[in-house]
Amino acid sequence: MDQPKEKTPYSLNSKKVADATKSWLHKRGVTVEEIAELVMFLQQKYYPNLTMEECVHNVEQVLTKREVQNAVLTGIQLDILAEQGALIPELQDMISHDEGLYGVDEILAFSIVNVYGSIGFTNYGYVDKLKPGVLERLNDKSLGPINTFLDDIVGAIAASASSRIAHRKQAERELDNGGEFDEEDLN
Amino acid sequence: MDQPKEKTPYSLNSKKVADATKSWLHKRGVTVEEIAELVMFLQQKYYPNLTMEECVHNVEQVLTKREVQNAVLTGIQLDILAEQGALIPELQDMISHDEGLYGVDEILAFSIVNVYGSIGFTNYGYVDKLKPGVLERLNDKSLGPINTFLDDIVGAIAASASSRIAHRKQAERELDNGGEFDEEDLN
Amino acid sequence: MDQPKEKTPYSLNSKKVADATKSWLHKRGVTVEEIAELVMFLQQKYYPNLTMEECVHNVEQVLTKREVQNAVLTGIQLDILAEQGALIPELQDMISHDEGLYGVDEILAFSIVNVYGSIGFTNYGYVDKLKPGVLERLNDKSLGPINTFLDDIVGAIAASASSRIAHRKQAERELDNGGEFDEEDLN
Amino acid sequence: MDQPKEKTPYSLNSKKVADATKSWLHKRGVTVEEIAELVMFLQQKYYPNLTMEECVHNVEQVLTKREVQNAVLTGIQLDILAEQGALIPELQDMISHDEGLYGVDEILAFSIVNVYGSIGFTNYGYVDKLKPGVLERLNDKSLGPINTFLDDIVGAIAASASSRIAHRKQAERELDNGGEFDEEDLN
Repeated sequence: MDQPKEKTPYSLNSKKVADATKSWLHKRGVTVEEIAELVMFLQQKYYPNLTMEECVHNVEQVLTKREVQNAVLTGIQLDILAEQGALIPELQDMISHDEGLYGVDEILAFSIVNVYGSIGFTNYGYVDKLKPGVLERLNDKSLGPINTFLDDIVGAIAASASSRIAHRKQAERELDNGGEFDEEDLN
Repeated sequence: MDQPKEKTPYSLNSKKVADATKSWLHKRGVTVEEIAELVMFLQQKYYPNLTMEECVHNVEQVLTKREVQNAVLTGIQLDILAEQGALIPELQDMISHDEGLYGVDEILAFSIVNVYGSIGFTNYGYVDKLKPGVLERLNDKSLGPINTFLDDIVGAIAASASSRIAHRKQAERELDNGGEFDEEDLN
Repeated sequence: MDQPKEKTPYSLNSKKVADATKSWLHKRGVTVEEIAELVMFLQQKYYPNLTMEECVHNVEQVLTKREVQNAVLTGIQLDILAEQGALIPELQDMISHDEGLYGVDEILAFSIVNVYGSIGFTNYGYVDKLKPGVLERLNDKSLGPINTFLDDIVGAIAASASSRIAHRKQAERELDNGGEFDEEDLN
Repeated sequence: MDQPKEKTPYSLNSKKVADATKSWLHKRGVTVEEIAELVMFLQQKYYPNLTMEECVHNVEQVLTKREVQNAVLTGIQLDILAEQGALIPELQDMISHDEGLYGVDEILAFSIVNVYGSIGFTNYGYVDKLKPGVLERLNDKSLGPINTFLDDIVGAIAASASSRIAHRKQAERELDNGGEFDEEDLN
C-alpha cells in the first residue's frame, strides 16, 4: 500500500465501504444486537447500570471506524471464498478447517481491538475462549457456513465496544466531578 | 491490570495525565512544533497545500489520546531513570546504551502508532531510520541526556499525526464531492 | 533504539540478561512451576497426556527468548519503582492503582505473546480474565507488592508456552505420520 | 480459530504449506535472491562483512516459520483474487487500487515482522517507503499484476531476516568472547 496521491482518478467512497460492512455482517447472520449482548456480557460487572441501548450504540460507533470495516470485509471475504472452495488448496484446507496454527483470523481481530487501545486484548481473548451467545453459533462447525474469520471478528468488535465504554464511563465520572475532558479522547 | 470497579476510591484524573504528558515532553526538550515539522516532512508530498498550522493541530490532537499519553510518560520515565542510573543493572546497560536488541522502545512506539491504524507503521519506520529534524538531535549520544525511548516516541507521534491527516483529507475530499461522513471515523 | 555498530565498546552480555530475568521472577515470588501450572490449565483439554515436565520445559524455553526477557525486566522494574513511590506522580498513580485505562502492561504482555505468533492472544486474554493459580495471588491488591505488570507478564509467558506446545505437538503428529519437519519452525 | 483437538480427522500437512509458500512467491515473480538483496541493503552498514549467502540463508529460514507462511499465502491469495475481479466490490476497489486507507496489507506484514521481535519494525517501514530493488517493480502499478499485499510482505520478510541476522551476529560476538548462548534464542 502507499498513501494516495491527491489527483488519482480512483476515489474511495467511504459511505459505500461502511454500508457494505453492515450489509455483509447482516448477510452472514450477525446482528448488531447480538454483538451488543457480548458487550453486555463483558461489561455488566463493571457497570451494573449499563443498558442494552448503550451497548448497541457503542457497537455501531465501532463499526464506523475504517480499520474495523477493512478487517470485517476482508475476513468475511475469506470465509465466503473458503465456502466456495475457491482458495489455494493449502489455504483452503487451513481456513475451511479453522486450523489452530493458522492465526491470520486472530491477526485481523487484533487490528480491530487495537483501535481502542490495548485494554481490549483481554476481553477479546476471554470471549473467544468462552464463546458465549452468538459466538457459540458462529463456531459450530456442524452448521454449514465457514466462519473461521467471522467469529474472531465479532468477538473483537465486542471487545472494542467494551474498551470504548470504559473510556467514556471514565469521562462521565470525571465530568460529574467537575473535571474537564477533551472531546478527541472519547472517540 | 483489570478494569476499574465503579466505586473504587482512587480516581484517575485525566486532565492531570494530559497536562503531565505535555509538560514532560517540554522538559525533555521536545516542542510540538518540532514534531509538526516531522509530520510536514512525511506528508508534504501527498498534500502539497498542507500547512504547519494543520500539522501542529494534528500533533496536539494525537497528544489528547490516552494510549499516547501512557506511552509518552512511561517511556520518558524509563529514560530519566536510566540517566539517574536507577535501574536494574542489566536493564540499565541496555537502555543507557540504546541496545539494538532491546526493542521495548519500539513496542511503546508501536502502541502509539496503532491508535490511528496500521497505515502509520511505514511512516514510523521511515523517520526512525532517517532521523530527520528533532530526531537527529534526540539520537545524538554525545549530548548527555538518554533518549532511548523518546526518539521512538516522537517519531511515533509524528507518524500518528500523519495517519490522522490521511483520514481527514480523505473525508474532506469526499465531503467536497457531496459525500456523507460519519464524525466518529475522523477521530 | 538503533542497531548496534559492530565496533561499539559496550557489549551486551546475553547470559547476564537471561540470568537476571530468572532471578527477578524468583525475587518477585513467581516460580517456573507456577507458570507451568497455568500452561497445564490452558492446554490439558487439547493434549490430555501433557505432563507438568513438558509444561516446565516449555516455560523455560520461552524464558530464553530475548524479547521475553526485555519485557519481564522492564515490567518488573516499573512495578518495583511504583512500590518505592519513585515514579512521575501521574504514572505513579496509574501503576500503583493498576488503572484500567493504563494499558502499557498489556502492551508488554502482548510483545511476549507475539513471539510465538497470534495463536497465543486468546490464551493470554483468557487467563488474564480468569486469573487462575498464581495470577490470583499476583492480582490480590491487599497483599502489599505492586504487580501491575507482573500478572500480565506471567499470563503472557504461560500463553506463549502454550503456543510453543501447539506448534511442537503438530510437528510430533506429522513426524509420527512419516512427515518431514524443518527444525526452525519448532523454536 | 480454535486450537486443534487431537483426534480430528483433518490433518495439517506442514510440508505442503511450506512448499506452497515458496512456490507461490516464485509464481508471483519474487526470488529468494531478490529478498536477500533487500536484506543486504538494510544490513550492510551494520555488518560490512555480511555475504549474500548469509542473506539468502536467513531469508530461507524466515520462510520456514509458519506465521510467515500463513501471511504470504493469504496476502498472495487476495492479490490474485483482486486480479480476477472476484472480490466484494468495495474490497475489490480498495485492493486493486492499493487504497492508502486500507491497511490490511500492513497488518499481514506486521504479523511477519513480529515473529523476530519489535526490532524489525523500523526496517520494514524504511524499505516500504524507499522501495529499493524488487519492491520498486512490485509497486509499479503500470505493470499489470496486483501486488497490494505482496510488496508489503516481501518488505516484511526482508525486515525479519534482518532481525534474525542481528540476533545471530550478537550471539557470534559473544561466543567469540567466550560467552555462552542458548540455542533457542537464535531461532
